[in-house]
Amino acid sequence: MTENINKAFICEALTFWDKLTDQEQSLILSNVSSASYKRGENIHSYDNDCVGVLLIKSGELRAYILSEDGREITLYRLIKGEVCILSASCVLKNITFDVHIDAEQDSEVLIINSGIFEQVCNKNIYAENFSHKITVQRFSDVMKAMQQILFSSFDKRLAVFLIDEISKTGTDTISLTHEQIANYVGSAREVVSRMLKYFENIGIVKLSRGKVTVIDKKRLHDFT
Amino acid sequence: MTENINKAFICEALTFWDKLTDQEQSLILSNVSSASYKRGENIHSYDNDCVGVLLIKSGELRAYILSEDGREITLYRLIKGEVCILSASCVLKNITFDVHIDAEQDSEVLIINSGIFEQVCNKNIYAENFSHKITVQRFSDVMKAMQQILFSSFDKRLAVFLIDEISKTGTDTISLTHEQIANYVGSAREVVSRMLKYFENIGIVKLSRGKVTVIDKKRLHDFT
Repeated sequence: MTENINKAFICEALTFWDKLTDQEQSLILSNVSSASYKRGENIHSYDNDCVGVLLIKSGELRAYILSEDGREITLYRLIKGEVCILSASCVLKNITFDVHIDAEQDSEVLIINSGIFEQVCNKNIYAENFSHKITVQRFSDVMKAMQQILFSSFDKRLAVFLIDEISKTGTDTISLTHEQIANYVGSAREVVSRMLKYFENIGIVKLSRGKVTVIDKKRLHDFT
Repeated sequence: MTENINKAFICEALTFWDKLTDQEQSLILSNVSSASYKRGENIHSYDNDCVGVLLIKSGELRAYILSEDGREITLYRLIKGEVCILSASCVLKNITFDVHIDAEQDSEVLIINSGIFEQVCNKNIYAENFSHKITVQRFSDVMKAMQQILFSSFDKRLAVFLIDEISKTGTDTISLTHEQIANYVGSAREVVSRMLKYFENIGIVKLSRGKVTVIDKKRLHDFT
């Protein structure tokens, strides 16, 4: 009974299923195992064995890398019906990086053995194309994450700086040019000016020559 | 003569060539054009038309995205014999982002029309797989670039901060805790401590409780 359910699920998740020979289908079916992961549990890491290809029956997985200070940079999330291929990165010749994968929710998955999946990909162009195709989808996710990193953290960095500066000087006015602030926060003057202008437009600061006056500390704190 | 040379080049660059029907080969060959780009010239941008698939005969192309302050974040470079597919991203269903592509050196390329390439990919699984496969290679390049952004810019940011701080106070000793410095530079205490320790190990600063003394300004400048 469970076997039939699993087979139906596999056929649907692996969209190249009907392009496989009977032998290839049997090979996959006899090398699938089930696994459950608790919310927060690590499934795949840089240094552990190649888990395999994961077919998500329920729950949610999250892929991330770690920044230098141990922050988790989320790359993408996968839900029911989706296939996680980077957990089998050991068998993907063109993938030269690795990611962490955690269960974001309690999750049920089917696992196809990495070596078996590789065998099928090497013989069957439809299987190989599938593994490349879903990796390309993850590439798009990662580019989105990267652009968020490049563009979206700056409001926070600037808010932290302004708060520290007024608490250090004990006044609400910071006597620094945008250029000087840019040097402190490791950015460019244009970026600082644009973000300060934004803070001014929403009523958090008031700008004048060589000065930034914080007029709404509470809302500035909301950015940090 | 030139046509024969181009054909030989196309056969080699498109590794799926012998999996194409005669008709598909002819279709591609009759929709190839040549182009030359000067060093620094933009080839493909977010907002211009879909250039097509580029086969690099000589020179070097560079793909990048722009950060908020207009800095170019290099994603990867391509050289002779390589194929640039993201310049035909309009026809790649799974690519939902765009990049800028410039000629990094004077470059000669062959351009396959995007629409024609798409037609062939839709009919021929080997062509489709090729386009996915080389995109996956670029994914690996981009992950490497992303990790450099996450990990490698911090030494510079910290060096800039230390230099500004000593020039502001007029002494070589900065009386700030690692926690305070972390707040200024928008990082975490652990990261600041690790990098300061590194600066100390290579003889640039000397650390003591609540203090950082710069002992080699020249080498600190080299980081910025």
